[in-house]
Amino acid sequence: MSETSQTGFFISFEGSEGCGKSTQIRQLVASLSAAGLEPVLVREPGGTPVGESIRQLLQHSDEGRSLTPEAELLLFAASRAQLVREVIQPALLAGRIVISDRFLDSTTVYQGVARKIPAGCVESINRFAAGDRLPDVTFLLDMDSTEAMNRLRGREAAARPDRMEEEPLAFYEAVRRGYLACAAREPGRIRVLDATLPAEEIADAIRQTLASHAIYPRNSA
Amino acid sequence: MSETSQTGFFISFEGSEGCGKSTQIRQLVASLSAAGLEPVLVREPGGTPVGESIRQLLQHSDEGRSLTPEAELLLFAASRAQLVREVIQPALLAGRIVISDRFLDSTTVYQGVARKIPAGCVESINRFAAGDRLPDVTFLLDMDSTEAMNRLRGREAAARPDRMEEEPLAFYEAVRRGYLACAAREPGRIRVLDATLPAEEIADAIRQTLASHAIYPRNSA
Repeated sequence: MSETSQTGFFISFEGSEGCGKSTQIRQLVASLSAAGLEPVLVREPGGTPVGESIRQLLQHSDEGRSLTPEAELLLFAASRAQLVREVIQPALLAGRIVISDRFLDSTTVYQGVARKIPAGCVESINRFAAGDRLPDVTFLLDMDSTEAMNRLRGREAAARPDRMEEEPLAFYEAVRRGYLACAAREPGRIRVLDATLPAEEIADAIRQTLASHAIYPRNSA
Repeated sequence: MSETSQTGFFISFEGSEGCGKSTQIRQLVASLSAAGLEPVLVREPGGTPVGESIRQLLQHSDEGRSLTPEAELLLFAASRAQLVREVIQPALLAGRIVISDRFLDSTTVYQGVARKIPAGCVESINRFAAGDRLPDVTFLLDMDSTEAMNRLRGREAAARPDRMEEEPLAFYEAVRRGYLACAAREPGRIRVLDATLPAEEIADAIRQTLASHAIYPRNSA
């Protein structure tokens, strides 16, 4: 454990679109805030002014539609490098709890497994961007790919869907397999949760896990 | 030499701001075009719709002013990854001459040497972004750093100077040393030219070098 990893607590949430991440993050933030712990919430790509410009380019611009897999990976990494140094590291050093909606496992899975960039390249760029602090706990909301797609289709469409949401089913299946492979490699960090359970049951499991890390008041868990 | 490197001809121009790159590139494009060779001209960062958005973010946006060195490096690399795959590789495969205003040596020097990111990190990200084709010839316009700064100050200011142009003299000196170190490592690829010579003498030296590569008609050189 490096010296910087001994302060604060870093939580990330992962899973394919439609898995219910946003709901769980909202509940966790409310619950930690009610317990007086005031978490810092960030999202990827984004979370800084530079990162939000990169998010716009990646997800909502016309030119983003022609992105090569390599440029896409590097843009996600640029957003992360900025977020880590501008927001996450200072917050952790100040002893805060940081919750990130996606972090480096998203890149391992989306750019590595699903876009087929060699794992060694993705890993070394991830490591450069993220620095030496990984999340202390990562919650992976896992769900059958068809179910995830059906949930997405059922949502009221926003102004326009983002690029990732337009991918075919095979892409979601590769994403799911990629995430489960990450969890198999790092079972101590990544906690796999069944995303088809009722939201309150998932929230309970999250609170129990955090209580076991002693960062969450046991009487609220 | 890889198979893809046997077609087309790839020229890059390097040097600090104020070195006269733009003038030389303009003259070379005119001269090659007059000889019927119609070069493809690109610039970094930029050269594609995605790359031009990244250029805007790096050089002219308010949020770009807060960029960490790591995010800056990754943004330059993202622009390059897109440019190589969308423009440079197809043009070279079609047998064209490609001229790039800056390429990967700029990253080695500006982000590596001047921003002090470890050389190994810069090199592996550069290699990932650029793929396996380096420029066949790189012209380095070399000049005393104080002279380069004076030239810049003498220029009529554009609407606003870009970020790099606001760096102190020590930065330009680190850039110059970095470029000369690149040239010392790769004397076969990088041709150092004295940027304080009259523009026409520099243009002659460039034409002679290209004639020696047999891509330039000797009677025009």
